[in-house]
This record gives sequence, C-alpha cells and structure tokens, in this order.
Amino acid sequence: MAKLVECIPNFSLSKEKNEAGYNALIEVAKSVPGCILFDAQTDGNHNRSVFTLLGSPEAVEEVAFRLAKKAMELIDMNRHVGEHSRMGATDVIPFVPTMDVTVEECVEMSKRLGKRMWEELKIPSFLYEDSATVPERRNLATCRKGQFEGMPEKLLQPEWAPDFGERKIHPTAGITAIGARPPLVAFNVNLATSDVQIAKKIAKVIRASSGGFKACKAMGFMLEDRGIAQVSMNMVNYEVTSLPVVYEMIRALAERYGTHIVGSELVGLAPAKALLDCAEFYLKLENFDYKNQVMEYHLIDMLGE
Amino acid sequence: MAKLVECIPNFSLSKEKNEAGYNALIEVAKSVPGCILFDAQTDGNHNRSVFTLLGSPEAVEEVAFRLAKKAMELIDMNRHVGEHSRMGATDVIPFVPTMDVTVEECVEMSKRLGKRMWEELKIPSFLYEDSATVPERRNLATCRKGQFEGMPEKLLQPEWAPDFGERKIHPTAGITAIGARPPLVAFNVNLATSDVQIAKKIAKVIRASSGGFKACKAMGFMLEDRGIAQVSMNMVNYEVTSLPVVYEMIRALAERYGTHIVGSELVGLAPAKALLDCAEFYLKLENFDYKNQVMEYHLIDMLGE
Repeated sequence: MAKLVECIPNFSLSKEKNEAGYNALIEVAKSVPGCILFDAQTDGNHNRSVFTLLGSPEAVEEVAFRLAKKAMELIDMNRHVGEHSRMGATDVIPFVPTMDVTVEECVEMSKRLGKRMWEELKIPSFLYEDSATVPERRNLATCRKGQFEGMPEKLLQPEWAPDFGERKIHPTAGITAIGARPPLVAFNVNLATSDVQIAKKIAKVIRASSGGFKACKAMGFMLEDRGIAQVSMNMVNYEVTSLPVVYEMIRALAERYGTHIVGSELVGLAPAKALLDCAEFYLKLENFDYKNQVMEYHLIDMLGE
Repeated sequence: MAKLVECIPNFSLSKEKNEAGYNALIEVAKSVPGCILFDAQTDGNHNRSVFTLLGSPEAVEEVAFRLAKKAMELIDMNRHVGEHSRMGATDVIPFVPTMDVTVEECVEMSKRLGKRMWEELKIPSFLYEDSATVPERRNLATCRKGQFEGMPEKLLQPEWAPDFGERKIHPTAGITAIGARPPLVAFNVNLATSDVQIAKKIAKVIRASSGGFKACKAMGFMLEDRGIAQVSMNMVNYEVTSLPVVYEMIRALAERYGTHIVGSELVGLAPAKALLDCAEFYLKLENFDYKNQVMEYHLIDMLGE
C-alpha cells in the first residue's frame, strides 16, 4: 500500500503582495515527482500563503525543504507586514499522516527536516504538536508568541532555546515551527438565534481550554449576513473527540438555552473517517469495520500498489 | 481520473463440489492486467460461486468474457444441483459503475458482452436491470423464473426471446443474465423485540414491492441466536433511497409498535457515499460537496492518474 503524508507549510508571502515570489514557490512545490501540490491559498491581508502537499514521505520532506530554502531567498521578515501572527519566512510546517503512515514517522520527518534546515540553511526551528520535546511547545501559538520581532529576545530565555540551531534567529528568515499533527477538521454549527452570547457559552462548555472535549477548539461568532450565531470549531483529533459527540453536546446545550441547531458546515477537507463516524453513531452500526467495508479504501489500496 | 467498474459474476459451481474447476476460474479472473479479483465467495449448498472483479472497463469486460468461456467449458448445467435458483453456467453478470463511469457505459458493456458471448460461445443472454430492453426483464428473478430446466420452453414464448442469440439455450451452459445496476448496500436493522411480526410489518411498509421506498427491498426475520427481530434490507440504489431516510422510517415504525432500534449492521461492502449521506443528514451539513471535501476522493484521483 502506498504511504502518503500531507504537509501544509505556511509562508509569510502572498500572491497579492509578491506575485513573482508566489509563483516561484508554486514552481518549487511541484518540483519533485511523487509529491503533488494539492491546494494553494493566499491572503493579501494576512500577507501569507498556505500550501497543501500530498505524496510519499520522502518526496514531501524534500519538497518541504526546497520550499523553506526558496522562501528564505524570497522573504525578508524585517520588512514583512500582515495581520496574521508569524515568526518566519516559512512560518510553520505541519506533517499529517494520511495513509499507512504513523504519527511517529511524521515526527521523524519533522526532526530530519529541522536538522537539515539548520545545517544547510542556518534556519533554527521549534518542534511543536506531536513532535514537541516539552509540553509547552505542543501549542503553536505559545511557540510563536512574541512573533518575529520578539524572537531574538525570547530565544535567550532559558526555556526557549530552539530544538535545532543556536539561540538566534536567521537574520531574514526568522525561525520555523515544524511538527507532526493529526488531520484537523474545521466544523461549524449554526444556531437559530441572533444572540451570539449563546454561541459563546456553548463554545466555552465544549472546548478543551475551558474544560470541555480534549480535541476540540471552539469560539462563538455572529454570522452577520445571516443574522445568526455560530459555534466555530477546530476538531484537532477526530479520533479523540468525534464529530457526532460534539454535535450532540451542542444540540443539548442549544436546547438548554432555548434555541436549536439549524445547520452545520464542514470547512475545507476532512478524512472520510471523520464523517463515517456519523454513520456508525447515528445508525448504531454494530461491528462496523470501515477499512474493509467501505469500497473506497480498497480502491486506494489497489491504486496505491 | 481512472475509470473503474465492478463486476460480480455468479457461477453455477462451488469450490466444495469442484475444487479444480473453482481454481481454474480464479486463475482466469486474474488473467488480465488492470482487473483484480477483489473477493471470491463459494457456497457448497448453493453449489455456486460469486466473484467480485474491479478494474478498468476494458479489462473487466475481457475478464467477464474469459470467465464465461471457462465456466462453459467446466460446467454441465444438466448435472448441476444446488439450492440457489440458476439458469446458466455463468448465471448472472452485473456491471456496477464505481468511479468516473456512467450507468450508460455499463449498459454498453453488458450489450457488447452479450453479443460476443453469442457470437463466440453460442451462449444466449437476457439483458436485465438498467440494461433491460423491456420493463419485465429488469428484475433478475423474473428472467430466471423456470430455471435451467424450464428455459427451453420459456424461450419459445413470444415475449421471452433472448436479447442475444436464438430461442434455445446453450446445451450445457444454459443462458446468462447480463446487466448494469447501481451498487447494492445490504443493511439490517435490529429491534428490541422478539416479535418477528413487528419486523415483518415494518418491512412491508418500507419496501418498494408493497408501496414503500422505491429502491428498498426488505424482509422481517428472527435472529434466533440473539432472540430479536431484524428488518433485513437490500438498498438497491442509495442515491434514490438513502440509508438515513429508511433508518428514520424504521425508527418511527418501531416506536409505533412499542419497541425501538438496538443496532444495525452493514453487510459486506458499501460505497463511502452511502454512509457519508448519514453525516450530511444527521449533522444537517449545508453545501456539503463530498467529492471535493472528503480527502479520500482526492487520493483516488491522484493515485488513479
């Protein structure tokens, strides 16, 4: 069976502000056989681009390195302006196990890449998420706190030596976070109310940071155009906190606050399993062996041979 | 994107009664590159084997022909004994569109195969299901009525001329039904009651033949080992009658009869879409674009290129 890894590097550069640079990155992303550029998003306000790569572990790791090298050549962080927090030309490089690959293998990929980026490019890095060497570094936001401008000082603090590299940033490319993480599912639930406080209260109950489900991040928002409140979530590990479980909790809480769910949306991509969990949950499927019973997994096996 | 067709030929031969013949068929099933033998079931009581082939339309069609030829060489229907109804050495050959293939293309496959089986093997055939030339031939059971022994007489009736071939069976291989059909999902729902009459009543309400859902066949059974009643279904087109809709109807009817659903089971394989429908239904997903939002479809696209 084919081994497949997803990689979603974030660059501090946008097509809107630097089209030639953006195109150069796109070209590099397609430069290694066995790795495809699956998706590319650019945001002028954030002055940031997010690529989605998919391919064999070896090919993806090589492309990630080449992209970090090209981004270093293209971007001077001293001159970077954008709304999104950032600390490096290549700001973050997550590896996500996708097919027949373990999290451990992705952790190894992140470590090899960090070592090589230091040795060949002199770009230091933090290992984050499942690659983190200490609990404080699991969270990307904690690693990035202080941003590019505050990093020289932060790296001198005893607990903030980079995992690879010396206690100073690359002068123009800054520092990069690299790590393995499970696939993330962006899932929003819409409520039949214009009271955003209800969405905020529900978000507080369900999210990990205030005592809720371990693998759920949540916020309450107002959808201004529709005049309704939304619970917006990042499900950071659907194997730990499943979509139907969080949905049923929101349903119960919405009822508690005198409203109900009118709909939901999946933002971007999700692995089939995150959604097949709904079939198992709601149909009360007994002994459901999804890898053997869902045709498409066999197709992938067959095609990947 | 790779075009893929599934083909599930049924042979009047079992490993239990003729191991050498069965092995010869297995060998033929694997004889064309681009077509794999996905699954092989054999039943000694039925004296029947069911193969599942998967591959490109051209490869699958060629393998289906070679199998029909080999089955003709191996099987003399005049000497065949088995519990299952049958009319030919190769009893039935369904083609199921699986990826990037239309039902119409599968209908064309069935017609080319029927023509070739007559021209090269002198085996006549009926076109059934979506390939049927008249409504009475859609149903396989109607085509097969009379079985091998009654076929010589049946073919002389004005309305039962074969779609390919003359009004007489092949002396040893009989006649074959060939047709395109949607993927079938076998889905059973278990009730918290030992009263099989409730399962029978529910089955009667939901199945097409007594006025229920168009693409649902259903029967009520007793699961003797568990002491509970089961509604056993063949969902013959989940795009027409979806799993969550039939499940919710059973739930309402079970409640009407004073019981409830304790679980369900998926028997064998199902296409992911049949189960993703549950995510869409129960999570009230808005604007769900499964082909673009479910990762695995992109993997299949990528691997199939």
